Amino acid sequence: MPLMRSWVETANSSDTDFPLNNLPYGSFLTEDGEQRCGVAIGDMILDVTEMEADGLLVVAPDEDEVLFFGDWTEFMALGPAVWESFRAELTELLSEGNGAAEELVPYMVPQVGTRMLMPFSVAEYTDFYASKHHASNVGTMFRGPENALPPNWLSMPIGYNGRASSVVVSGTDIRRPWGQLKAPDADLPRFAPCDRFDFELELGAIVGQPSDGPVSVAQADAMIFGYVLLNDWSARDIQAWEYQPLGPFQSKATATGISPWIVPKAALEPFRCDTPERERPLLDHLKAPRPMLYDIDLDVGLAPDGREETIITRTNYKEMYYSSAQQLAHHTTSGCPMRVGDLLGSGTISGPEKHQRGALLELSWSGKEPITLDTGETRSFLKDGDTVTLRGAARGDGYQVGFGACSGTVLPALDDPYAN
Amino acid sequence: MPLMRSWVETANSSDTDFPLNNLPYGSFLTEDGEQRCGVAIGDMILDVTEMEADGLLVVAPDEDEVLFFGDWTEFMALGPAVWESFRAELTELLSEGNGAAEELVPYMVPQVGTRMLMPFSVAEYTDFYASKHHASNVGTMFRGPENALPPNWLSMPIGYNGRASSVVVSGTDIRRPWGQLKAPDADLPRFAPCDRFDFELELGAIVGQPSDGPVSVAQADAMIFGYVLLNDWSARDIQAWEYQPLGPFQSKATATGISPWIVPKAALEPFRCDTPERERPLLDHLKAPRPMLYDIDLDVGLAPDGREETIITRTNYKEMYYSSAQQLAHHTTSGCPMRVGDLLGSGTISGPEKHQRGALLELSWSGKEPITLDTGETRSFLKDGDTVTLRGAARGDGYQVGFGACSGTVLPALDDPYAN
Repeated sequence: MPLMRSWVETANSSDTDFPLNNLPYGSFLTEDGEQRCGVAIGDMILDVTEMEADGLLVVAPDEDEVLFFGDWTEFMALGPAVWESFRAELTELLSEGNGAAEELVPYMVPQVGTRMLMPFSVAEYTDFYASKHHASNVGTMFRGPENALPPNWLSMPIGYNGRASSVVVSGTDIRRPWGQLKAPDADLPRFAPCDRFDFELELGAIVGQPSDGPVSVAQADAMIFGYVLLNDWSARDIQAWEYQPLGPFQSKATATGISPWIVPKAALEPFRCDTPERERPLLDHLKAPRPMLYDIDLDVGLAPDGREETIITRTNYKEMYYSSAQQLAHHTTSGCPMRVGDLLGSGTISGPEKHQRGALLELSWSGKEPITLDTGETRSFLKDGDTVTLRGAARGDGYQVGFGACSGTVLPALDDPYAN
Repeated sequence: MPLMRSWVETANSSDTDFPLNNLPYGSFLTEDGEQRCGVAIGDMILDVTEMEADGLLVVAPDEDEVLFFGDWTEFMALGPAVWESFRAELTELLSEGNGAAEELVPYMVPQVGTRMLMPFSVAEYTDFYASKHHASNVGTMFRGPENALPPNWLSMPIGYNGRASSVVVSGTDIRRPWGQLKAPDADLPRFAPCDRFDFELELGAIVGQPSDGPVSVAQADAMIFGYVLLNDWSARDIQAWEYQPLGPFQSKATATGISPWIVPKAALEPFRCDTPERERPLLDHLKAPRPMLYDIDLDVGLAPDGREETIITRTNYKEMYYSSAQQLAHHTTSGCPMRVGDLLGSGTISGPEKHQRGALLELSWSGKEPITLDTGETRSFLKDGDTVTLRGAARGDGYQVGFGACSGTVLPALDDPYAN
């Protein structure tokens, strides 16, 4: 598919994340302090809440103002036919040559300087562990090379439930957590600020339709509304001491950041690709009937204290062993009901090469091989003041479909967490 | 504290769960199909939604009808001062000799024959692992006696995030799940109905106030609104294959049942008791400033296919090593925000004796020692048609404060989960 041209000139550039081919969903704060639904186009945001209120956009003929609260949850719940008609309506209005251009200009807000908000209400959050390179690397560090990949790993997308209340939008500062830490040579743990704070580069799939009983991989794919970049902030020292036998808990509960823009599944259609060859045949209910991964280039930048950013990893979402649709299908096997607004983290996306690893834990090999930044500093784990920025885009012919940046800055731990 | 006498005669019986000392919160369906908030008193339910609508009850002077939707979530959010004034108001109205008796009779609905509904909206659900007897028993079965208790167990209440969407009220039938099962001698898993379906006897604490940052054990206790009985239905064969390395997932996602009545924390005050002696000193932030467990007798009945029920376990909540307040405090150490309606499962409550074990996994020692029911049948795990009923009550002088029954019946697995 070629670039679709828009009358918004900046949307026709080959390096914007937001050509007419994309039209991602976000929420933003107006100068008057109101929360609105917006759609990104070039360097602008189209205020679709205001357009709906003024009758310029019909989201769903039988519903009251769907976008009134400035959050996309209600829109998602209306289902794929509405997602499609809304997208078609917007595509037409924003296409080069459309007569609505002049009428729409007052509904445009510049992206620069506009504060983005959480675009939907996260029902529940599940995080997976579905890159074989990541699982093997981490498994080797935590359990040794002979136990690197757990026996079940090639048979199911391993996941655990995370904490929806801790999901925050890009731009939110992240306070370094306290927790129980036990040094390998200590008998007992102490309660102290995390010393091995890390990011995880992931993609998040947003469930836009509910389920009641097991769903197939094809049905799961149809339930997905769109994708975000996702940073699963992780406290490795807390994790090492707490995670056996029931999995990560407080180590993953400080924050999970997402990109401000939800890229519609429809915008990613041209970039579908297959999961890698199976090393062990999947059980029938997890087999993918068609390509369900996407070819999306990803990178992570680290900028110490507002200084020059270094790109510390470059990888691609197609490295995953399981797709989000397979993860969602597995999630329902027990009859677990899924709800509108459930968020599924793909798991850390690491490629086979060292520079393709999606977390500092892997990049620095658990601190044994610190990485060197362009500023000359080294990093094993994150320092206070570090800003981590995830970026991602699927690249077409003369255009790209991107997510905008997913950023967060690490603030120092509280002096005394119980002072209040 | 002695029995507080009510003009509702059945509330003065020594064996009702619902004397005036209790006044638990529930939601029920009227004959007209409306959802209402109710308070149990003796064998009746007081329709407090209707009372508030008619101006007979002031829940919060500055708020519109708080109980309008027949769900207690909004009431919880108003905080401890409102919880206290509401309870005082109801206590007075229902006390023996109160002149309101005649006026209130029309707001009474018999408990028998009334369908109970979910009394609050579960924000997120966390399940703990905090009975030492249970942890040691299960640890011995899964990892051998030398690794029975994980190294971290005596330092922190181990927990994992569960699935809020799967929480159901007592009376909801439970469909036996499908899942990946791997026999110990098989190379590969198969996808089949669970063969080792189990219950877990727990108490659930309901978080009634939000937090934003770490809270102390005393602050955590103040955030708790009340307690329910909780049955964490568990698929042991799915669990055994999936739970390493990231914890239980689909094995715990089919359903979690709760009692229809939330017993207010205030009603349990006379029954506070200490946690058992510490075998390893706790870190300061987890130390309890006063008794935070409760002396609550618990039992579980199993009735095959509508036939005679056998009480298969009798234990007490005071057997727990960690209290809900300690669990909630631990839950916030990382800065994890807690929300109104979060539900914390205590973990399976097992006592030191064999007949005090809170799950079939332990009672039948992983199927090696099936138990015999009064009907003459044996059970290692649950069969289709089995009804499991949890009961619990704190016993005072001539009265008890109970939860009502928490029941569920196992339905056969679907023939083909992907038939639709």
